[in-house]
Amino acid sequence: MVRFVDVANMTKWIAQDGVEPIITGMVDYLEQDFLRWELFDKTSRVPSHSDSGVIELMPTSDGDTYAFKYVNGHPLNPSRGFQTVTAFGVLANVSNGYPTFWSEMTLLTALRTGATSAMVARLLARPDSSTLALIGAGTQSEFQALAFRAILGITEIRIWDTDPAAMEKFARNMAPLGFDIVVATSAREAVRGADIVTTCTADKANATIVTNDMIEPGMHLNAIGGDCPGKTELDAEILRRATVFVEFPPQTRVEGEIQQLDADSPITELWQVMAGRAAGRTSAEQVTVFDSVGFAIEDFSALRYVRDAVDGTGFYDEVDLIANPADPKDLFGLVTAAAPVLV
Amino acid sequence: MVRFVDVANMTKWIAQDGVEPIITGMVDYLEQDFLRWELFDKTSRVPSHSDSGVIELMPTSDGDTYAFKYVNGHPLNPSRGFQTVTAFGVLANVSNGYPTFWSEMTLLTALRTGATSAMVARLLARPDSSTLALIGAGTQSEFQALAFRAILGITEIRIWDTDPAAMEKFARNMAPLGFDIVVATSAREAVRGADIVTTCTADKANATIVTNDMIEPGMHLNAIGGDCPGKTELDAEILRRATVFVEFPPQTRVEGEIQQLDADSPITELWQVMAGRAAGRTSAEQVTVFDSVGFAIEDFSALRYVRDAVDGTGFYDEVDLIANPADPKDLFGLVTAAAPVLV
Repeated sequence: MVRFVDVANMTKWIAQDGVEPIITGMVDYLEQDFLRWELFDKTSRVPSHSDSGVIELMPTSDGDTYAFKYVNGHPLNPSRGFQTVTAFGVLANVSNGYPTFWSEMTLLTALRTGATSAMVARLLARPDSSTLALIGAGTQSEFQALAFRAILGITEIRIWDTDPAAMEKFARNMAPLGFDIVVATSAREAVRGADIVTTCTADKANATIVTNDMIEPGMHLNAIGGDCPGKTELDAEILRRATVFVEFPPQTRVEGEIQQLDADSPITELWQVMAGRAAGRTSAEQVTVFDSVGFAIEDFSALRYVRDAVDGTGFYDEVDLIANPADPKDLFGLVTAAAPVLV
Repeated sequence: MVRFVDVANMTKWIAQDGVEPIITGMVDYLEQDFLRWELFDKTSRVPSHSDSGVIELMPTSDGDTYAFKYVNGHPLNPSRGFQTVTAFGVLANVSNGYPTFWSEMTLLTALRTGATSAMVARLLARPDSSTLALIGAGTQSEFQALAFRAILGITEIRIWDTDPAAMEKFARNMAPLGFDIVVATSAREAVRGADIVTTCTADKANATIVTNDMIEPGMHLNAIGGDCPGKTELDAEILRRATVFVEFPPQTRVEGEIQQLDADSPITELWQVMAGRAAGRTSAEQVTVFDSVGFAIEDFSALRYVRDAVDGTGFYDEVDLIANPADPKDLFGLVTAAAPVLV
């Protein structure tokens, strides 16, 4: 039997353990996996593009455990009552190829994206950072706010979105939780004076959500908006001025902000900074950019975390996914056992 | 909600509808999809290799429906009480990226592989074919026998396997169903005089299960044993002598029997034969080979078939896989609704 965490159990588990404790625990798992980055089987995700969006598969393996995520990105979905991004994922045993764990990952991706953003900001932002500008008040925004509070202690948030209702939703959700929230009147106003800027917008276009003249010395930019070829958020001048950090270069070159730059533009791999093999921030004036596209190893960490966290709880079901004949060569026997005379 | 066919429901559905009627219906779906081959989004499957086997993802899309299969291949699994191949698959709606249908595919892959083999043999084998040699008595063998009877009316089977217990299992399963079965004492004896030869062995090695001198003029060979780089079953001389037909050339060049030949060796794409754009068998003496590796479009057809067949029956459950907030931008609201004070 395969353990299955559906949306109802995921929601109950998050409500019981709390978003911030979960993100704190998930950051530990992410750090463990980034520190053993080299041993993973790594491949760029496999996209299937259509006019309305993209469906992607994101596999990886550490040699013992295999994981993949199914995820879509459909920018116009909210206008039709659907979410931009939905996802689910599976863990499997490499030694026999059998799946062992299956989970919804719409909520889990929101948690892992917040956790990854905050883990990287703790590594790259100025240590005295206290203010976060959030450009984009969609699904990811609340998880960003809670992740930055859990990991960096940040409580001052400036929010901007072209959709006033989305900003109202963000303020309504977060104000009761002890944040100091400024609803800005423009991206420029939200960014001004912020220590960290997260862009999490969904348009599939080469948009310029943030321009170079808005960026002040010492800022850390966390560019996460669901990436794919033809979708960027940052003024290319920012990328030329800043030090750019990435997850898996072959994927980021195609999907990330740096698709705007030459294929050999300088980048630094995050795992190398975490392992002490490459420099992170080197001065208080430096502008740092996490050109985040989301890599399969982050989903591997998130799935591992939820698998371990729900063990011994009631927050999963068991599903009958793998046919299990007594004689492994007699799969057909399962059919005759069910209908001895009907075959 | 996503419809889910687990192993128990798959088994009950097969027992109710019957293997041969299902394979007959599935061949219709396969033919429909091969005839519109060009419009599919096609990519070689994405493997993750380990010392013990391989785990693969097989995605495709026709522009309206996306499908992928997860499948493993672990040749030593039966010796440890596990099956060589297990699988599951998903259908999704391309327009919004939401999954719609989820199914076990261990049994379904066995059905679709038999259906594909028989569909192709009806196209390429001599019309008077009446005898099938089966080299390999594992999981796939019974489904091959039933598929060839359903689609070509073949009831004479010669079986050979290095494992006598597997041959006994095959005879025990199939003899009561009206087949005329010869348990051979060698591959050579099984092949002698047969019209169609199926090789379905699992060793991950460049084995020579069938040699060129065993192959008689006019034979059709159906080489299906779970393929990957470094795994072949046929003497390369057979491939040079025969006309070779394949599913998706870029995948077959890497995984199929033709990995033994030069990268530009002559091959014919099956869909072109089915569409009347390329010749199939042109003489009664010609040796034809279906160098079958299994392509994603066949799983797409199989998933479509079972989705349609179980509609209106009790052979599926509904699972809560996609988070569905009333405001699509308020995913976080699902958490606060579950625990308004605990976040």
